[in-house]
Amino acid sequence: MPPPPTAALSSSSSLCLFPLSSYSSPKKTQLGFCPSFPFTRLTNFTPTRRLMTCSAVSIEKETLISHRPHTFLRETDGLDDGSVRSRFQRMIMEVQDSVCGALEAVVGAGKFKEDAWTRPGGGGGISRVLQDGDVFEKAGVNISVVYGVMPPEAYRAAKANVTDQMPGPVPFFAAGISSVLHPKNPFAPTLHFNYRYFETDAPKDAPGAPRQWWFGGGTDLTPSYIFEEDVKHFHSIQKKACDKFDPSFYPRFKKWCDDYFYIKHRDERRGLGGIFFDDLNDYDQEMLLSFATECANSVVPAYVPIVEKRKNTPFTESHKAWQQLRRGRYIEFNLVYDRGTTFGLKTGGRIESILVSLPLTARWEYDHKPEEGSEEWKLLDACMNPKEWI
Amino acid sequence: MPPPPTAALSSSSSLCLFPLSSYSSPKKTQLGFCPSFPFTRLTNFTPTRRLMTCSAVSIEKETLISHRPHTFLRETDGLDDGSVRSRFQRMIMEVQDSVCGALEAVVGAGKFKEDAWTRPGGGGGISRVLQDGDVFEKAGVNISVVYGVMPPEAYRAAKANVTDQMPGPVPFFAAGISSVLHPKNPFAPTLHFNYRYFETDAPKDAPGAPRQWWFGGGTDLTPSYIFEEDVKHFHSIQKKACDKFDPSFYPRFKKWCDDYFYIKHRDERRGLGGIFFDDLNDYDQEMLLSFATECANSVVPAYVPIVEKRKNTPFTESHKAWQQLRRGRYIEFNLVYDRGTTFGLKTGGRIESILVSLPLTARWEYDHKPEEGSEEWKLLDACMNPKEWI
Repeated sequence: MPPPPTAALSSSSSLCLFPLSSYSSPKKTQLGFCPSFPFTRLTNFTPTRRLMTCSAVSIEKETLISHRPHTFLRETDGLDDGSVRSRFQRMIMEVQDSVCGALEAVVGAGKFKEDAWTRPGGGGGISRVLQDGDVFEKAGVNISVVYGVMPPEAYRAAKANVTDQMPGPVPFFAAGISSVLHPKNPFAPTLHFNYRYFETDAPKDAPGAPRQWWFGGGTDLTPSYIFEEDVKHFHSIQKKACDKFDPSFYPRFKKWCDDYFYIKHRDERRGLGGIFFDDLNDYDQEMLLSFATECANSVVPAYVPIVEKRKNTPFTESHKAWQQLRRGRYIEFNLVYDRGTTFGLKTGGRIESILVSLPLTARWEYDHKPEEGSEEWKLLDACMNPKEWI
Repeated sequence: MPPPPTAALSSSSSLCLFPLSSYSSPKKTQLGFCPSFPFTRLTNFTPTRRLMTCSAVSIEKETLISHRPHTFLRETDGLDDGSVRSRFQRMIMEVQDSVCGALEAVVGAGKFKEDAWTRPGGGGGISRVLQDGDVFEKAGVNISVVYGVMPPEAYRAAKANVTDQMPGPVPFFAAGISSVLHPKNPFAPTLHFNYRYFETDAPKDAPGAPRQWWFGGGTDLTPSYIFEEDVKHFHSIQKKACDKFDPSFYPRFKKWCDDYFYIKHRDERRGLGGIFFDDLNDYDQEMLLSFATECANSVVPAYVPIVEKRKNTPFTESHKAWQQLRRGRYIEFNLVYDRGTTFGLKTGGRIESILVSLPLTARWEYDHKPEEGSEEWKLLDACMNPKEWI
């Protein structure tokens, strides 16, 4: 059966926007599931070729446009119809504006450069990047909206209680915001956040099958030096956002974050964590939309006061060199482990949007070991042994 | 059946010493073959668990020693018995000495720092690193000798005409030299070379099965700016080494090199190539030992005159920034694609020896495009469209 003429999914158009974990929750079986599939253009799709086409994925080429559009939704979706997809898109556009606005206020001089694109089959994205400024070495804040088709395996993984029927490829919708902010000052931490929403339509040959939806995302902090008050402040804001919805959220998503951002070959986390969640659909949909919105709106109060406080702290060459080494670890995580990045690189997404997550500069020293008890050692210790900050 | 109490293979103890391609030549089928297996410690090995243990590999921890030993061979191997493994080990030790000696002469002041280690089950390695000197940002020259066990799948892949019997795990021996040299001056190119030799013993439960051996390796050049005379000189020396043995070698191994060092997500090669070969066993063994020796001995005449000529060339900030961007590409290749590196990171080899291949510093700019016709553009063009240099 040939694939529906749906636009391919740009998982990666937006800086690791859609980590594959969306389709591969650790709680669900992976056997026979090709992780790259959800994002592929299913050319010549037949059941027997399902697992064979994994290594030959490709996604539709984006078209740069000169002005950001009001919406990336298809007309058939309705534009402001109050649907979750429409409201989620509005939310990420507003958050992109508010985060970029807040960062431009921190910077003083300097504006984000904007690149917008669409894809012929629907969807598109907006990348905003501020590079080599006074405060930020590199700051990227990207949004993306994708219409794609998902293989039946992924669809089944998304909802454990789907019956054993094997539907055809499932059209789906995804939207998200993703951002990495690398400040220049070694005492100002790197921030990453990402919030995303998925919906499947009914499979073409099983119109009665249930539609599915789920949320994913998180916000995490990666300092080179620990200021305990900063880390406590950051985690407190995450906890406050979580606690508004469910007291179990913060402890659960804090641990998920520590587990996800793990550089296995170093036995270190990338940074000091925050929150991370994925495949969330076992709560009320409206509640989770509000929760994702709350988390995304918490980015500015969680981060901006920290970067304001640290952006002008005097530092030495040696502080800078340590920051550069930690930047190296950031790159190791993103290129070796991050599912969104590694998948994006393999499938031909917009490379510049994916790799804007990498810092402007980084450093690798042979066999570098911070002196025991030093400030550098304390950071490393906290990356190796995640702590409860609040 | 439990595994034989053989030492695990440190594929990675020596800077991507044993890329997995040794076991996974493109000409041979990969189905059902777990590429990480050859290097794993086969704990609780049973036929039904063969493909399940892939994701839980580990290798024996190395022990640092204060002095380099005369040999890493097991006593049962004989020390100077004229065997190929013994002569190959001697060759890589001599090449490590001669390359480091030649580089120290280029540098003037500054000596390589040496780390040597052994593994309880036999084998070991010597890493030599020169960091942040006047001429080299980072230079690593490593050797390694490994005794390990190989799963039957890998053994069968190594020789296409092995019968369909399924023997148990196959003990094997591997030795190699691997090196990456990153000069400071942006007009002096990065060099990588790696030569390795493998031998299998008879499988434990099929003592009559044939023993196998094969060679792999290559030498390649990664400049930031093209000096055609340098690239021609480099390739000429590679061709001269090849032509002494077989006129088909240079064209075949030159293309193999261009194909292997390919950064797919950029549609660029890492650099301007050289030679690369793997799984070579369809020639006389003595001839191939001589060929690998000739190639390894060609490193100094191929590279040292170039770095001597360029090490003091005046350069600007902008030349340096371009070199740093190309360093970023080098890191992308090594962390995302290089089979030795990615495997090494996953299996817990000596991380510092694996990652000494990464440059001291690197840079990633958002959406950087060199001006058409510029020197930077010419380099990029040559990386995208491999040329015949001689």
